[in-house]
Amino acid sequence: MMTEITVQKLDTEQFIAEKVAEIKDAVGRGTAINALSGGVDSSTVTMLGHRALGKQLRTVFIENGLMREGESDQVVSLFRKLGVTVEVIDARDEFFAALKGITDPEEKREAITQTFYRNVFGRIVRESGAKCLLQGTILTDVDETVAGIKRQHNVFAQLGIDPQEAFGYRILEPLIQLRKDGVRKVGKALGLPSELFDRIPFPGPAPSARVIGEVTRERVATVRRATAVVERLLKGSGAFQYMAILHEDRVTGMRDGKRDFGHQIEVRCWDSIDARTATPTRLSFEILENLAREITRDVPGVVSVTYNIAPKPPSTIEAV
Amino acid sequence: MMTEITVQKLDTEQFIAEKVAEIKDAVGRGTAINALSGGVDSSTVTMLGHRALGKQLRTVFIENGLMREGESDQVVSLFRKLGVTVEVIDARDEFFAALKGITDPEEKREAITQTFYRNVFGRIVRESGAKCLLQGTILTDVDETVAGIKRQHNVFAQLGIDPQEAFGYRILEPLIQLRKDGVRKVGKALGLPSELFDRIPFPGPAPSARVIGEVTRERVATVRRATAVVERLLKGSGAFQYMAILHEDRVTGMRDGKRDFGHQIEVRCWDSIDARTATPTRLSFEILENLAREITRDVPGVVSVTYNIAPKPPSTIEAV
Repeated sequence: MMTEITVQKLDTEQFIAEKVAEIKDAVGRGTAINALSGGVDSSTVTMLGHRALGKQLRTVFIENGLMREGESDQVVSLFRKLGVTVEVIDARDEFFAALKGITDPEEKREAITQTFYRNVFGRIVRESGAKCLLQGTILTDVDETVAGIKRQHNVFAQLGIDPQEAFGYRILEPLIQLRKDGVRKVGKALGLPSELFDRIPFPGPAPSARVIGEVTRERVATVRRATAVVERLLKGSGAFQYMAILHEDRVTGMRDGKRDFGHQIEVRCWDSIDARTATPTRLSFEILENLAREITRDVPGVVSVTYNIAPKPPSTIEAV
Repeated sequence: MMTEITVQKLDTEQFIAEKVAEIKDAVGRGTAINALSGGVDSSTVTMLGHRALGKQLRTVFIENGLMREGESDQVVSLFRKLGVTVEVIDARDEFFAALKGITDPEEKREAITQTFYRNVFGRIVRESGAKCLLQGTILTDVDETVAGIKRQHNVFAQLGIDPQEAFGYRILEPLIQLRKDGVRKVGKALGLPSELFDRIPFPGPAPSARVIGEVTRERVATVRRATAVVERLLKGSGAFQYMAILHEDRVTGMRDGKRDFGHQIEVRCWDSIDARTATPTRLSFEILENLAREITRDVPGVVSVTYNIAPKPPSTIEAV
């Protein structure tokens, strides 16, 4: 059932027709639900589900307060153009409450995962009456779970659905035979616009990794603004990935001749083929100086900007 | 009495002869004491005092554990060549005890100042029987005190000497009419070697500014090792000043394929005329990559290296 379909063997029209039929068959006259993050996998699943089910599919976008500026608006308007209605669930209060006081990176990830599955999406699923869940799991996720890189998740347990009472619930994973390149090909065939594929990876809970220390609304707003500058200035760099990181350490700066104890943003920009090893992009000093000038000018409280110069290994791509 | 002697008007031979006579006159048959830091001002005062008093002057170097690697040995051997005996006082335990648990930059500076004057040097002065203290105060220090940039210090209070009982104590400040350029000229005339003048400024308690967060022996050792790499690789850069800063934030790295939660070193290298404004030196990426490679290789626990790209203002030269 999990036989790999390589991108060479993949006949997108046939694949789409088969998966649409399978989804229709599974849902019947009921309803299905899925969570859209705006990434390639969940976007492709949304399009497949929409083609199979139309109004029988409820697609939710959970606004966790941790994404790029304007991310939910962009995703909603992108899917509206494709005829798909996306329901935005404002769960910012719940996420920030769950993150309050937590500084350990692992605990932050865990708080985000728990809040997403159990508190927010789990509640929506339980209350929706939908018995079918569409998920964007791909073959690489399965491999990584088997290899122990990702933790094995019991989706029902995560959603707070008692397995004893779970009879009748179905998880549909139509992309599970594909790898990333195959998903992109299917997504394009389903009409997803190129802007969705061109975006630099920005993992959902990224600010928990991009904010060292406690994740608060204010600190997320700071790293978001810095991210906007970095993405604007490095868009043409050809780099594999770039990011802004807000440090917890405070440093001294000066504004209007006065001492100002402020924040530091670290910029990382990576050259890499597969993220397993990576080297800092040799940006010109004109670009580095523009980054520093625009970040210190546009992001309140930031007085210092650094550029990462260490490769992976011994560094890693994300800071925490 | 504090009439400025500009470097143009300064006749070093005449100046030295006058100051030697003044010091001899003030000390008479008693003894004098001074603290040598290895900087230009205190080194010049040491040479003046030695010329005036010979064995009647006791010169101490207080090892606070916060200086460059091998700093006390270098200073002692440099002065030995000039015929001056320097007594090293190992006060590392007292300084680290005073710094324990302190993370606020102002409190760190205060702890260092207090420990230096009241606990260590104060005790030496009180126990020495010397009634004359030689200090390397220069005219710029006086100006900055008047302007409110530096705090006015009551030296006796700092040393823990009761002003009521202080009758007979004298503070001699033979350089108080000079600015830095004049001091350098006098120092050279007194035989101080050029290596002492060529050194990049390294303020005595620098590691309290170069270690963000608590200053411990281990953390000072880390920033010292990184400083040694930075000074070696940037010696030929022609930059105004360069430094290594140990951050308190921990970041993720990897060693031998395993996750390693480690330290980050920030390198700053400044182009500047007078330190009032400064811009990061446009170092080549070859140099930046060498810095990162050697620091992560040679300094235990460091997995990440950044380079400062923000100018002063809004940044400052030191991080805290």
